[in-house]
Amino acid sequence: MASFSGYNPQSHSPSPSAPPMPNPQAPSSSQPHYSQPPHWHGSSYGHSSFPPGTHPDVIRSFQMVDRDRSGYIDEIELQQALSSGYQRFSLRTIRLLMFLFKNPSSPLGIGPNEFAALWSCLGQWRAIFERFDRDRSGKIDSMELKDALYSLGYAVPPSVLQVLISKYDDRSGRRVELNFDSFVECGMIVKGLTEKFKEKDPRYTGSATLTYDAFLSMIIPFLVA
Amino acid sequence: MASFSGYNPQSHSPSPSAPPMPNPQAPSSSQPHYSQPPHWHGSSYGHSSFPPGTHPDVIRSFQMVDRDRSGYIDEIELQQALSSGYQRFSLRTIRLLMFLFKNPSSPLGIGPNEFAALWSCLGQWRAIFERFDRDRSGKIDSMELKDALYSLGYAVPPSVLQVLISKYDDRSGRRVELNFDSFVECGMIVKGLTEKFKEKDPRYTGSATLTYDAFLSMIIPFLVA
Repeated sequence: MASFSGYNPQSHSPSPSAPPMPNPQAPSSSQPHYSQPPHWHGSSYGHSSFPPGTHPDVIRSFQMVDRDRSGYIDEIELQQALSSGYQRFSLRTIRLLMFLFKNPSSPLGIGPNEFAALWSCLGQWRAIFERFDRDRSGKIDSMELKDALYSLGYAVPPSVLQVLISKYDDRSGRRVELNFDSFVECGMIVKGLTEKFKEKDPRYTGSATLTYDAFLSMIIPFLVA
Repeated sequence: MASFSGYNPQSHSPSPSAPPMPNPQAPSSSQPHYSQPPHWHGSSYGHSSFPPGTHPDVIRSFQMVDRDRSGYIDEIELQQALSSGYQRFSLRTIRLLMFLFKNPSSPLGIGPNEFAALWSCLGQWRAIFERFDRDRSGKIDSMELKDALYSLGYAVPPSVLQVLISKYDDRSGRRVELNFDSFVECGMIVKGLTEKFKEKDPRYTGSATLTYDAFLSMIIPFLVA
């Protein structure tokens, strides 16, 4: 049985959802050579702006798809924007990312701030994925997924992981393996549900009392994504 | 706030998940003219059999797609089998039905018993759908969905229903309406999650205490379906 207090033993971060480690591939605001000249961010761009130190590639990826310069991008534009830095994610994964990273008070879509946070999170996850894809096949199996999620701070029960990974079983009889797209989808489901649970268990006791209404409200957005 | 005790005021059934009312369209074991000759059911057919009184159409629909006479059908076969009595459901709805009606101890698929139960449940839901589709448009809106779910025994909070129905918003700006396929998907999500919750709240207090592991285990199968 996983307990909340024993959640994150391998990570350097204080909580399961905090960024676990700097990513060698992805831009980071702590890297001084990525600091931006003033015109890269500021209130001149739409209603929102990029955080200081955002990598020019991130801003370029966003601006390339935000053709009407509204400062917000929708799911199709997000899919295009991420293609330039990562790969073409499935629309299912994109919807989940939209749901988890979108600011609830901005119904228009993903803004610069959220896009920068998402890009950086994906960078960290890419680094973890590559660390556990030891044979460089571009895929990880269920044991490696368990270890990868663990290093991201999520101790997922093996039985749950089994159900989760069965989603990607193509019924060929071969062992199920996940590419980066599926890894992100799996991981974001775990991350999102864990964060919802933590809201109801602020002291990390490992259990939470939920009303029927709260239970439905927590889950249904994930089914809709 | 919905409470469990006040769940099912319009229904004749003792609990939210019990069949709410006999369906005028669908076959029912209480209708004597549907009783089967002995060769319709029995151990001669696969490893399982149809319950006594199963309508011949139901058995025919099953046998038509179970070409290898294994006594089990997979999701594509289920989609075909249901087409003959209802309509062609989306694969998303079919997967949800498989997950909710499959016997967990039969990994092979849906057997005759489960198929008969599913057919009968869909018959009841069809009758409810038609009752609330007052203008016979083949679609119901969010208010009618609320009333329809209520009459099936589910008092879903309006805010949750709003999120659920947003899944079917085609962003045309028109009011969201659900066809029978989407109604079944919505309803089965609510039915499935409610049953999971009830397992943790056997006295219907309206709230349940869940461990993190139990919480994930309850939800992830719905995401996988």
